[in-house]
Amino acid sequence: MNAEIIAIGSELLTPFRQDTNSLYLTEKLNDLGVEVVFKTIVGDSRTNLTQAATLAVSRADIVIFMGGLGPTEDDLTRESVADALGLELRRDPEIVAALERRFAERGWKMAANNNKQGDVIAGATVLPNANGTAPGQWISGKFEGKEKIVILLPGPPHELKALFDEQCMSRLQAKLPPQFIASRVLRIALMGESQCDARVAPIYKRYADVDTTILAAAGEIQLHLKTRAGSLAQAQERVDALVQEIEDELDDFVVSDNGDSLEQIVSYYLQMRNVTLAVAESCTGGLLAERLTSVSGSSRYFLGGAVVYSNELKTAFADVPAELIQQHGAVSREVAAALAEGIRKRCGASLGAGVTGVAGPTGGSPEKPVGLVFHALASGSGTEVIERKFPGDRKRIRWFASTQALDMIRRKLM
Amino acid sequence: MNAEIIAIGSELLTPFRQDTNSLYLTEKLNDLGVEVVFKTIVGDSRTNLTQAATLAVSRADIVIFMGGLGPTEDDLTRESVADALGLELRRDPEIVAALERRFAERGWKMAANNNKQGDVIAGATVLPNANGTAPGQWISGKFEGKEKIVILLPGPPHELKALFDEQCMSRLQAKLPPQFIASRVLRIALMGESQCDARVAPIYKRYADVDTTILAAAGEIQLHLKTRAGSLAQAQERVDALVQEIEDELDDFVVSDNGDSLEQIVSYYLQMRNVTLAVAESCTGGLLAERLTSVSGSSRYFLGGAVVYSNELKTAFADVPAELIQQHGAVSREVAAALAEGIRKRCGASLGAGVTGVAGPTGGSPEKPVGLVFHALASGSGTEVIERKFPGDRKRIRWFASTQALDMIRRKLM
Repeated sequence: MNAEIIAIGSELLTPFRQDTNSLYLTEKLNDLGVEVVFKTIVGDSRTNLTQAATLAVSRADIVIFMGGLGPTEDDLTRESVADALGLELRRDPEIVAALERRFAERGWKMAANNNKQGDVIAGATVLPNANGTAPGQWISGKFEGKEKIVILLPGPPHELKALFDEQCMSRLQAKLPPQFIASRVLRIALMGESQCDARVAPIYKRYADVDTTILAAAGEIQLHLKTRAGSLAQAQERVDALVQEIEDELDDFVVSDNGDSLEQIVSYYLQMRNVTLAVAESCTGGLLAERLTSVSGSSRYFLGGAVVYSNELKTAFADVPAELIQQHGAVSREVAAALAEGIRKRCGASLGAGVTGVAGPTGGSPEKPVGLVFHALASGSGTEVIERKFPGDRKRIRWFASTQALDMIRRKLM
Repeated sequence: MNAEIIAIGSELLTPFRQDTNSLYLTEKLNDLGVEVVFKTIVGDSRTNLTQAATLAVSRADIVIFMGGLGPTEDDLTRESVADALGLELRRDPEIVAALERRFAERGWKMAANNNKQGDVIAGATVLPNANGTAPGQWISGKFEGKEKIVILLPGPPHELKALFDEQCMSRLQAKLPPQFIASRVLRIALMGESQCDARVAPIYKRYADVDTTILAAAGEIQLHLKTRAGSLAQAQERVDALVQEIEDELDDFVVSDNGDSLEQIVSYYLQMRNVTLAVAESCTGGLLAERLTSVSGSSRYFLGGAVVYSNELKTAFADVPAELIQQHGAVSREVAAALAEGIRKRCGASLGAGVTGVAGPTGGSPEKPVGLVFHALASGSGTEVIERKFPGDRKRIRWFASTQALDMIRRKLM
């Protein structure tokens, strides 16, 4: 079975707004064994919408319409789909009565244009919308000699998701062969996409039954693995076996094998090891602390830190000797180490992290170019320093640098 | 004139990836007076792609294809569009020779499958691609009795943008009546969308010739204003007049009227007034410092700050008396003020900002619920404190709180 998703709304044809609902629906449909073969985005035009609906019903088994179910003149999905299917619209007095109650409960009088939200395509099942006024509709039957399923959903994401999950998934499942799907997400830090793929491709190519998707972002790769089999246990076994082989290959580059973020994993390790942390950051300007504290409960292990942009503050907050800065420069292996050691002592933390570098676009030199960053991690047993040269703009360099600092903490506690 | 944009690639029909190129092209097309009426997303299937191409050419004046121009078996745009237009594909020896040179320059031997990138639709103008191997194509002529423009562009955004800007815009302009468009973007801080709209709608409704789009995000609203007129001066005058009326109405809620971000505006003010800044933040955990230092050159006025998650560090880094914390609690008007004053003195800055609150989801109480945040700004002439109760989750509350702190600095220096 395949599906076409149609997003409706003139705002989706401007430079400002984009359909994202279809990503959610695609994931759910894929889990049912349904492939999405077309997505269409159409404005609030009855002609264009009817044309798109007619075409979709002729070429896809399942057609899902999103949006255009509201009370205004621009909301034309009901009329257009009815036209495309050659069916009548009938006003359902129960829906109208429910709408009137909804308005009355809020102390409002319902405007007449809301009545059109009670229009139902002949033979459709009404899907009540707990989060809004516009109900969805479910139509299943033969059109042009073929079994088709047509679904009308409201456009606002929280209405669409709740309605689809609660009322469409089980109906679709009943129409489709059972699916036994297992999936896992591996997250890998600080490895290039091509380097990662070169190492894992020979492995996942041997698992032709597992879909492998590689998503790369700055400093992180996600491997999405998914398979279907005759039973859930079989599917899980196949995915788990592939995960194991990839983990053996990539070893400590693997941050998590259940989708957890680097920040979350660092949080687990710090709690598990009963370790506290303080940071002194220059070029990342607070980003490292921000990422550490983005995890709820981080006050249990993160004591705090200093954003030491000026040289004076490197001394005042992290006890970096002024002579050291003068001798080696603020961006240096020595100052990174002193930042980590200084902030650790000042905060009474088990671990201290220090970051100093050139985020750019200005401030670079031939010896210390934009992108050069020193990362230090100090503990009771000594201090390690990593030097990196990151590519990209200011934002990207700061992101890479904070990721590197987080990864040093992770590796230290592994 | 209207346009249809077709994005090609099976990865765009998964839950993981989304076409964003079309937003860019839509903005450019709108500036030429061209409206986008359909967007279609289709996988790497020759049947589906040919069908989509045939339909698009029948219903839109301008059809733009994005992607599917590479060298692999999955790259089927050339063949499918040629089929849809009823034209032949011819291999262009010059393109093949240029590809071979490109590979040779890098010391590589070109694989035979790259030859297909030299296939050109009969009558098409080849659009050289400075940033990749696949050239674009431009076809203009009568199809089914109507003048049509068909454009093939590579999928990678930097290739597509450069190729479209440099080689398609001028060609399209030559085919279209001249457009005189003026646009401006207003940014408004810390006002609700409906509250903002209630105040500005009576104004922009009097400017029916100006398109007004309201985009709302956490703590910020953008008003995009755009108009066409008989001359550029006329268009500019209309937009400027509307901007002036909105600024008179919203007054100091307007952060910028040229699209500049709050961070950038704060940066301008700090430089203009020759003022330095230090921050002590608790619940925002480094986010305030991160946003301040996201602007290049921020080291000129941002001295640094402290992320004082623990009570001990509030005392150690910002000299907040331990008794004050004990008496009023860490989340209090008094501690916010002490943080701002303490960090200002410790860093020798003109201004000190302090933030303390409950970001949640844990740590709330009936007296101090999740979302309660105190913001303080200390200067030589005294300290002001603002108390807010922000809605939403941890991420949203931290974002609101950092926006409020930035906005206090902006208003202080206005």
